[in-house]
Amino acid sequence: MTLPRFSDWGWFFLVWPLLAWSAEPVLRGTGDLGVIVERGAGRVVIVSTSGNSIVQRVEGLGDLSHASVVFSRDQRYAYVFGRDGGLSKVDILRGTLDKRIVQGGNSIGGAISQDGRLVAVANYEPGGLKVFAADTLDLVADIPAAYGDGKLSKVVGIADLPGDRFIYSLFDADQIWIADVRDSKAPKVEKFSHIGKSPYDALVTPNGRHYLAGLFGEDGIALLDTWQPQQGVQRILAHYGKGEEKLPVYKMPHLRGWAVAGHQAYLPAIGRHEVLVTDTINWKETGRIAVRGQPVFVVARPDGRQVWVNFAFPDNGYVQVIDTFTGQIVQTLEPGKAVLHLEFTPRGEAVWISARDDNKVVIYDTASFAKIAELAVESPSGIFFTARAQRIGF
Amino acid sequence: MTLPRFSDWGWFFLVWPLLAWSAEPVLRGTGDLGVIVERGAGRVVIVSTSGNSIVQRVEGLGDLSHASVVFSRDQRYAYVFGRDGGLSKVDILRGTLDKRIVQGGNSIGGAISQDGRLVAVANYEPGGLKVFAADTLDLVADIPAAYGDGKLSKVVGIADLPGDRFIYSLFDADQIWIADVRDSKAPKVEKFSHIGKSPYDALVTPNGRHYLAGLFGEDGIALLDTWQPQQGVQRILAHYGKGEEKLPVYKMPHLRGWAVAGHQAYLPAIGRHEVLVTDTINWKETGRIAVRGQPVFVVARPDGRQVWVNFAFPDNGYVQVIDTFTGQIVQTLEPGKAVLHLEFTPRGEAVWISARDDNKVVIYDTASFAKIAELAVESPSGIFFTARAQRIGF
Repeated sequence: MTLPRFSDWGWFFLVWPLLAWSAEPVLRGTGDLGVIVERGAGRVVIVSTSGNSIVQRVEGLGDLSHASVVFSRDQRYAYVFGRDGGLSKVDILRGTLDKRIVQGGNSIGGAISQDGRLVAVANYEPGGLKVFAADTLDLVADIPAAYGDGKLSKVVGIADLPGDRFIYSLFDADQIWIADVRDSKAPKVEKFSHIGKSPYDALVTPNGRHYLAGLFGEDGIALLDTWQPQQGVQRILAHYGKGEEKLPVYKMPHLRGWAVAGHQAYLPAIGRHEVLVTDTINWKETGRIAVRGQPVFVVARPDGRQVWVNFAFPDNGYVQVIDTFTGQIVQTLEPGKAVLHLEFTPRGEAVWISARDDNKVVIYDTASFAKIAELAVESPSGIFFTARAQRIGF
Repeated sequence: MTLPRFSDWGWFFLVWPLLAWSAEPVLRGTGDLGVIVERGAGRVVIVSTSGNSIVQRVEGLGDLSHASVVFSRDQRYAYVFGRDGGLSKVDILRGTLDKRIVQGGNSIGGAISQDGRLVAVANYEPGGLKVFAADTLDLVADIPAAYGDGKLSKVVGIADLPGDRFIYSLFDADQIWIADVRDSKAPKVEKFSHIGKSPYDALVTPNGRHYLAGLFGEDGIALLDTWQPQQGVQRILAHYGKGEEKLPVYKMPHLRGWAVAGHQAYLPAIGRHEVLVTDTINWKETGRIAVRGQPVFVVARPDGRQVWVNFAFPDNGYVQVIDTFTGQIVQTLEPGKAVLHLEFTPRGEAVWISARDDNKVVIYDTASFAKIAELAVESPSGIFFTARAQRIGF
């Protein structure tokens, strides 16, 4: 063998694989990753909870002024639902926008099916549910939220149920629907009417059993036991909503802001500086904890020992920590200006907090309350970790 | 530019990157992966729950006749604890044995710390706890289970607690210890004595709060509330263990075979063909469900709606399904001969069942009970999915 003369082609053949290799993503697990929404920039930031660090940014996701995220079952893809009706499939290993469609005019959130094959979007405009194949984002079902004389209602409060089912509420129709999309050409829809005035948000309990819808038009919460749907929708917490003054709907606390820890649920009072405590066995209120502002999100540490609370303006620079064992506030923190969201690492040793107006995300140790790190993130809003892929109702 | 003459070197430079690329593992998420122990062959099988398929096998893990597994926080590595004292770190993305050490004579299980930095092994021989750095497997702490006149006890029933802590029982010393390894050069050990005769296994509840140890030498369960350790160890279920005849210790049901669903725990009766139901708020027995054999593992589907049960010989070809809502048996299945273990996919749509003497793993749909697939696996025992990385106590 003789060495080749190093012509241009020679160098090319020697060097190209090294360049190509360096463009390949680093081999890594996905269990410790997450995404943070940069709400003003149409971007998400891919982060690592092991490194407390930013991995990469992904551009071009449209209007994320209100956005939520679900993950594929292998945790490789994040599906981002944007305010402008955009549905973006982000490859969090490659750090690329794998596919993006604009599937509606105005959208509020979405869900992924239990087996991960279907992604559903809850649309304000046109009012209804659209269901897509998770891999290709091809439309597989379109279920308009039709009521009355062919009117279409805004859809809110969507969650997945076991099987290829999604449960959601119709804000304008005062209804709760369960869509079974197993046969996507012929979806079956079960409808519950007169459930209460103007359901504006909802959640399912961690076991996927109870669906709770907040009502804007009256006090109380609408409860549907999905293991006994024939019992219909019941009213619980009849006084929930009696604030000192009526809040506009966009200031109503997120029901996703409820924490279920053990057999208690912790929820933001409406128009009061209180966290309510409710027994999830009989759904009766068992207590109230005074906090420093109007709570927005009340989030439980995974072991249920603590519940962390953020607040609406003008107290949105504060976070308080409740010890669920004693019912006492054990810490008041000031992470930064305009705290929008909180997310715990999967086993709960740390919590990540977005401070929109300080353009940073702050990470705390949940045992010592020491600040571990700060990350520069532009107008951060929602923080979502991949562990959600493996939890019912996320 | 002129094309190079294709000498041997020319072909080499053209072809080598293609060969090297093809040896690189396929880029994939880790959320839908798992490992199955091939107990007679010293091997683990890497599987995908999305594909219901085998990805790869990894050899050379020593004596896996009794083995358990925990996962790194990013889900990339499986730590396999083998009967022969082997601790193997398996890279489930590359399908390689990253590192293996033999750290004791005889070992029964291990745990990983909340933050994923430490892996602890519970040793029979020499009796004690050894703690290793999760990345390098370097020994960072060695805590002999010394009692009486310098005797060493077998260590059993290990689990992680929040912080760098591990809780475990001393079979020969009738003690429960909590080791805090935050300062690995000076571990702090809290000891609880006279907890009951011969604790042989243990578990923590899903919230990491209650530690329950089964007693071989007397009836009842030892309970420690780790949120109130000053209350000491209490006895619950005082009649647990009163079987028709005394079982040898190796036939005692695994406490890891308890299911906690909602606020009830479902546990194998000892020496009876029954599953006991216990309230986890007051720890009182609330019911018994008759089943067809001596239960070994009682495993809850993630939503808690079902509990699946396997049995000891001669009923070890059967599995029964209990609907927790009605308390009734809703299905009896015959997956194969010598059913050793059951594991649910993270959101519970499927369950994987090992049938050792049929050299297969059978996968069922948990809603319809239809068999989805069978995989050829040699003498399969334990099945472990990566979602465990994100759950307390696993």
